[in-house]
Amino acid sequence: MNIALAQFNPIVGDLTGNAHRTVEWVKRACEQGADLVVFPELSVVGYSPHDLLDNAHFIDAVEAAIRFIHSHVPPDMGVLVGAPVRNPNPVGKKLLNAAVLLEKGRPARLTPKMLLPTYDVYDEYRYFEPAESQEVMEFSGMRLGVHICEDMWNLEEYATYHMYDRNPIAELVDQGVDVLINLSASPWAHDRHAVRNGIIKTLCQQHNVPFVMVNQVGANTELIFDGDSSVHGQDGQLLASAPSFEESLLLWNTEHSTACDPAPRHRIQDLHDALVLGIREYVDKTGAFDEVLIGLSGGIDSAVTAALAVEALGPERVTGVTMPSLHSSEGSVSDSESLARNLGIAFHELPIKNAVDAFESTLSPLFDGTPFGIAEENIQARSRGVLLMAIANKFSRMVLTTGNKSELAMGYATLYGDMSGGLAVLADVFKMDVYALARYINKRAGEVRIPVSSIEKPPSAELRPDQKDEDSLPPYPLLDDILQRYIEERQDEELIAQATGQSISFVRGILDAVDRNEYKRKQAPPGLRVSVKGFGSGRRMPIVARVDRQGIERMMHELQEESPA
Amino acid sequence: MNIALAQFNPIVGDLTGNAHRTVEWVKRACEQGADLVVFPELSVVGYSPHDLLDNAHFIDAVEAAIRFIHSHVPPDMGVLVGAPVRNPNPVGKKLLNAAVLLEKGRPARLTPKMLLPTYDVYDEYRYFEPAESQEVMEFSGMRLGVHICEDMWNLEEYATYHMYDRNPIAELVDQGVDVLINLSASPWAHDRHAVRNGIIKTLCQQHNVPFVMVNQVGANTELIFDGDSSVHGQDGQLLASAPSFEESLLLWNTEHSTACDPAPRHRIQDLHDALVLGIREYVDKTGAFDEVLIGLSGGIDSAVTAALAVEALGPERVTGVTMPSLHSSEGSVSDSESLARNLGIAFHELPIKNAVDAFESTLSPLFDGTPFGIAEENIQARSRGVLLMAIANKFSRMVLTTGNKSELAMGYATLYGDMSGGLAVLADVFKMDVYALARYINKRAGEVRIPVSSIEKPPSAELRPDQKDEDSLPPYPLLDDILQRYIEERQDEELIAQATGQSISFVRGILDAVDRNEYKRKQAPPGLRVSVKGFGSGRRMPIVARVDRQGIERMMHELQEESPA
Repeated sequence: MNIALAQFNPIVGDLTGNAHRTVEWVKRACEQGADLVVFPELSVVGYSPHDLLDNAHFIDAVEAAIRFIHSHVPPDMGVLVGAPVRNPNPVGKKLLNAAVLLEKGRPARLTPKMLLPTYDVYDEYRYFEPAESQEVMEFSGMRLGVHICEDMWNLEEYATYHMYDRNPIAELVDQGVDVLINLSASPWAHDRHAVRNGIIKTLCQQHNVPFVMVNQVGANTELIFDGDSSVHGQDGQLLASAPSFEESLLLWNTEHSTACDPAPRHRIQDLHDALVLGIREYVDKTGAFDEVLIGLSGGIDSAVTAALAVEALGPERVTGVTMPSLHSSEGSVSDSESLARNLGIAFHELPIKNAVDAFESTLSPLFDGTPFGIAEENIQARSRGVLLMAIANKFSRMVLTTGNKSELAMGYATLYGDMSGGLAVLADVFKMDVYALARYINKRAGEVRIPVSSIEKPPSAELRPDQKDEDSLPPYPLLDDILQRYIEERQDEELIAQATGQSISFVRGILDAVDRNEYKRKQAPPGLRVSVKGFGSGRRMPIVARVDRQGIERMMHELQEESPA
Repeated sequence: MNIALAQFNPIVGDLTGNAHRTVEWVKRACEQGADLVVFPELSVVGYSPHDLLDNAHFIDAVEAAIRFIHSHVPPDMGVLVGAPVRNPNPVGKKLLNAAVLLEKGRPARLTPKMLLPTYDVYDEYRYFEPAESQEVMEFSGMRLGVHICEDMWNLEEYATYHMYDRNPIAELVDQGVDVLINLSASPWAHDRHAVRNGIIKTLCQQHNVPFVMVNQVGANTELIFDGDSSVHGQDGQLLASAPSFEESLLLWNTEHSTACDPAPRHRIQDLHDALVLGIREYVDKTGAFDEVLIGLSGGIDSAVTAALAVEALGPERVTGVTMPSLHSSEGSVSDSESLARNLGIAFHELPIKNAVDAFESTLSPLFDGTPFGIAEENIQARSRGVLLMAIANKFSRMVLTTGNKSELAMGYATLYGDMSGGLAVLADVFKMDVYALARYINKRAGEVRIPVSSIEKPPSAELRPDQKDEDSLPPYPLLDDILQRYIEERQDEELIAQATGQSISFVRGILDAVDRNEYKRKQAPPGLRVSVKGFGSGRRMPIVARVDRQGIERMMHELQEESPA
């Protein structure tokens, strides 16, 4: 049997568009001799439609989209799509997250998802009732073990948040299957490729069954899907794999079992490709703006953001604006100019002096006699924000913000200033990885795109004379290490202090700063998620909260000295 | 037996503070002769701690806080607190949402929550494993049917999102109970008082058992808890109730069964009290700023926001700033001045002309020859935002934003302009309710606080000559009706068109505007939630999405004409 893996890129909510493109893909697969085409999880609606699922009318429309696809399935072919379907049981959540097998002249057959991720960016139990059982689907003489995404993620070593009491893969295999087929919407993050393939190999070897995994590709708001669809043989060897970060229709014949070499993966290259896809998709799928606008400071973050935007959209769709102030170094303008020249993008220079002077003179009745401080620094950053947004509004462009994860963590950014924009490209990239990206971009281009001085000069916000990031923040290699341990690995202050050789009070100061700046991140634009824990919908921290680390330590210490109650 | 209902106001995450205050309340209850003190759901950590629960160290500290409270329980007393506790079963979620009964010299006893709300603002299955069973707790010769919040919300008529397959109340009653005790963290919204009391009465009558409900009070970020704790007799009659929107320790003797009259409730008065509490708590619990700052436009929204802030914080903690432009009416300044005088707050006038001129001259090389438009309107709103934030930064104040739910729904607001601030007071209040609040505030004060002309003049953003809201938006009574049907009742365009007597294309235009402006709301400050569906964490709509209502209608129409596949 020929199985086509449809590594498909749906647009969230675009039922008519997704349905029409599904039908086109089925036609292509049919022409290529496929017997069965497998689309990703929730392929009809995109992942994730979130609360669109709460609208009954939207679910009616999903049913219509499925019927539309069904009515276009060629004879003797099977099409597996992913879609929300109504739960026939009046008890429980109203929907099931299902794989739907469509054949001409035959009623649709369903397999609902059993394991519903409800942690990090996933809210599936908000909408879906888990399957009580899953049945093997017979198709064209083969027994298909169809299941959905998380259904395969129940190995103990990956159970960060949840150890499930069911094992859908084992339950399917017990019924006798010829091939396991997983419909996924599994977003990319640094280690996902290795983890996914590790799980699949383990399952093949445990159960002695080949494994087809079809993952969504493209990006939806903060989530970037790499695809990474694959076929593994019953011994766990890779038999076929789709290219990452692009749509692909991959054919595999079930009789074919020659191993192929996995494409080599490089962390920074993958990060680069993910961000480029994320930018392109955000701009194109929102559809409101064709072009983007970036404030260029001469520093590394805005340079990398601009270079990635150019790769995503082409230089003609990117404009850079440098907005020097009194405190800007000479390099602020000259490095921005070099960057724009290297990238071939339009470039404007708009000094902020007039605006800053106007604000300061308007405020002088209130501010006279007070020292220069955060207020004055922020007036500069916000004047830049107003200028950028004015150009964006005037010429229908989207502003990309340039702050990185290290800054965002520490609140080292100005709300309504440099945080103004539609998409935060580097919001989930620590500063040291921004440097690595810069070097990779130049190496990949075989020429200097990002000026060497932008890479080599000490980072500075340039909001007061001779300001350097290191005046306010620890050195980035140390800061990034601490932040990653706290945010991504959820280590506590004691463990982090031990691991990094720092004092507990030093580490506590950083952790407190991360907590304290939750209110800023609440108002940040969506950021592209590239780690297992970004500052987006996957990290839900209370804004009004008081975590008194010192008080807690004292209480725990005092209790240790008392006898238990 | 004397049961004390501790209508308690915890701070999220403040384990030491909450534990110390719990001990104080227990002492007070003991002095008043209580045998049992009942605190609300998750009283030790506040509702909701969100992803603080993912940190193992935080859970260690919760355990310490419980031990601290336990070690202070007086002899012959029981204390029921709410807390996350570790799930002893390695399978499933790592935590249980439990009621913990503490007695001196006896191990703690637990009842975990069975029904875990995972919809709207609730994410409980993100963290907690549901109880498989709940056992009646024997205490002081009585059989207590202890359960938690949602455990009582499983009547079919309230199952908007979820019909549960378990009935914890019935299961407890089957074991034989003398009194049902519900620990709640049930946030306020317009109809919640009536709904809660309706459920409790129904349950009393169904099961012939008295019912004690203890709800959290106070506010945490967007959620406002009204308390509304009560005792109902086995016939469903109200026996005792705590005052709303304030802390209270209410004693009830189980032998006492004289009915009392419920306090009369008024929708706008409750709304007023909820918002006042929400402002006070947000400012005091964040603790970063003592004072607030409000941009006064002379219009109704900023006037109501300022009046509420004065009731929450006192006039000495509120400052108004009017920032007139060329397009401002005379009333913009004079009505703001009258308001400030009426409220007794500090008042500044800072014209934005200099800043706007500076931006326009800086931008003239790019903008020359283009017509006045959204870009120029936004420059005005954003110049005001910069001025307000500068004053806030300089003098350590928090800006309150003034936009209402109708505007926020339609995107009739400027990001980084009038949307700049720490808390959006009216974000969940439709425009017509803002008017009702204004009239109520004046009536309650027995004098004109909010100038009559602010109430009577046609609403205007005053960003271009002779601009009126009705140039861009439908009349507010109609708009509010359509928005409420769409957002809160999730009606589709056809139903809304029918109910309001408008054309489908007109309604569709409004629904599309709501969808299209999701990106603005993503970057809005937290808003106080007062409806069953606010624009906060309870409404999770995709930002990058394409809902083509016309295309969907066409597809559904075409399919109706074909025969089913």
